[in-house]
Amino acid sequence: MLNQSPDLDRLFSALADPARRTMVERLSRGPAAVSELAEPLPMSLPAVMQHLGVLEAAGLVRSEKAGRVRTCSIEPAALSLAEQWISARRSEWAQRLDRLGSFLATLPKDPDRAE
Amino acid sequence: MLNQSPDLDRLFSALADPARRTMVERLSRGPAAVSELAEPLPMSLPAVMQHLGVLEAAGLVRSEKAGRVRTCSIEPAALSLAEQWISARRSEWAQRLDRLGSFLATLPKDPDRAE
Repeated sequence: MLNQSPDLDRLFSALADPARRTMVERLSRGPAAVSELAEPLPMSLPAVMQHLGVLEAAGLVRSEKAGRVRTCSIEPAALSLAEQWISARRSEWAQRLDRLGSFLATLPKDPDRAE
Repeated sequence: MLNQSPDLDRLFSALADPARRTMVERLSRGPAAVSELAEPLPMSLPAVMQHLGVLEAAGLVRSEKAGRVRTCSIEPAALSLAEQWISARRSEWAQRLDRLGSFLATLPKDPDRAE
């Protein structure tokens, strides 16, 4: 009965790093060359390429090389998958609150009578 | 300019494990004793307690001990934080598509004229 989703493992794991989230934030605003992604990050280009590899393996980012420039783009479907998992949990939790509310509404309103 | 959020690091990292997601799914439906959380998981109780510790450190779950029973509950605010980060990215991405659409609408519609 395990939640067997290697996709979600890779997605959440990829998002658990501040440099990778910075890259995803940048790419959500539009495609960018690797050099542009690397610019705000306090790390070497090889380290940036490694993070890019994790994002690509998680399906969050795709990249294409044209000449000497590798351009990266966001893959919104992967972000959606993570969002759907979280919002399904919120919805279950909200339904539980609704049921609790309905149950409370069936209790006597007069505290003396309830006593 | 790094996305400095140790909270998000811990949150996404906690969600990157199938056993921990199974625990969060169960707790989204209501509080549960540790033994109940452990029941569907193919692992020892100490391993479950370790996963529970990760979820608690990430702020996703809280637990209270009454007598010999430790009862766990979901902390919906933490899930919200992760959800907000993802939906902010989706919204940026959608805005970019809108701008792209507006730009395309300014182009000449007649392909011969565009030529």
